Amino acid sequence: MTVGVLGGTGDQGRGLAYRLGRAGQSVVIGSRDAARAEAAAAELGGATISGAANDECARRSDIVIVAVPWEGHAKTLESLREPLAGKLVVDCVNPLGFDKQGAYALVPDEGSAAQQAAALLPDSRVTAAFHHLSAVLLQNPEVETIDTDVMVLGESRADTDLVQALASRIPGMRGVFAGRLRNAHQVESLVANLISVNRRYKAHAGLRVTDV
Amino acid sequence: MTVGVLGGTGDQGRGLAYRLGRAGQSVVIGSRDAARAEAAAAELGGATISGAANDECARRSDIVIVAVPWEGHAKTLESLREPLAGKLVVDCVNPLGFDKQGAYALVPDEGSAAQQAAALLPDSRVTAAFHHLSAVLLQNPEVETIDTDVMVLGESRADTDLVQALASRIPGMRGVFAGRLRNAHQVESLVANLISVNRRYKAHAGLRVTDV
Repeated sequence: MTVGVLGGTGDQGRGLAYRLGRAGQSVVIGSRDAARAEAAAAELGGATISGAANDECARRSDIVIVAVPWEGHAKTLESLREPLAGKLVVDCVNPLGFDKQGAYALVPDEGSAAQQAAALLPDSRVTAAFHHLSAVLLQNPEVETIDTDVMVLGESRADTDLVQALASRIPGMRGVFAGRLRNAHQVESLVANLISVNRRYKAHAGLRVTDV
Repeated sequence: MTVGVLGGTGDQGRGLAYRLGRAGQSVVIGSRDAARAEAAAAELGGATISGAANDECARRSDIVIVAVPWEGHAKTLESLREPLAGKLVVDCVNPLGFDKQGAYALVPDEGSAAQQAAALLPDSRVTAAFHHLSAVLLQNPEVETIDTDVMVLGESRADTDLVQALASRIPGMRGVFAGRLRNAHQVESLVANLISVNRRYKAHAGLRVTDV
């Protein structure tokens, strides 16, 4: 099974690609620019990580993580509808705005980035996960385990089970089912609160679900 | 210092009143009906817990937790503007809808229940906290510690520090600053996701913030 990471040259995507590759997962980093994707893959160094243009990344992968900036989210997914058909898509995009007071939630017309992905990709199986991860910790090779749960949302049990299993491949991480896509907005935008936590406590905060 | 709990005869309010009283905090349970509030206080049994009508509860308290149902939130707070003036108000209300597929977020005109409280109570200091607690665990006397963090939101450091300290009085609980009131909606509505977690895992889920 191969996992693609669209936007895999950004901090979050690169961090996820690194962690999955390090866990032995076959990973394809996607970028608008194939050369940049290949350079990022070479830099991350694992034998399991390669790079390709976004459409090629989608075509080669069974599971495709969407880690593009919110600003390019709709446009990128629209352009990849065909190569993403039949694929399991995992949206991890957090629509946020920033001003002097910090981060705040943006509200997509569809309700959330994940619901926007589902609307734009009618032939894909769309889930949402990997929102609350610190890109700093993901990318730091000295960090052995990532101490956080991953809330996984989706409409199909088979799909969310697969994404949970994928998350649980990364040492310290655990996939936890956390509802349907209609409840994705608050999971995405909670990143604004984690940014406040990080500022106040000089931390790289994640979340654990207790009693599970 | 006395803590009032408006809506203290409901599950969440009763559970919080019980835990705070058990931790030695002086608590006044508030209800529309003074006799019901007094009966709930007697039932909870602690020498530290008394009951009163909502307005009397507000008047007697330094910190007032708002734990009324979302349906009565605006009306209750409007009617208590005067006795709540000058008080530290802690809103823990989660505006949710329910249908066959479970719980989903409602979006108040003001953005969140906490922002509605701030709009309706211009002479109070409004914070938000205590959203992610299991009323079942809170009310079970055999449960010794409540294994969860409490996200505390507000505009003033002095106020959020006080609410964090209050949360931390309950064994197992820890107050964590998690942003301004404009980021309260996602904290409130994340309860819909925790309800999905509870269904899937037969759990009473809470949250821990990692790396803090």
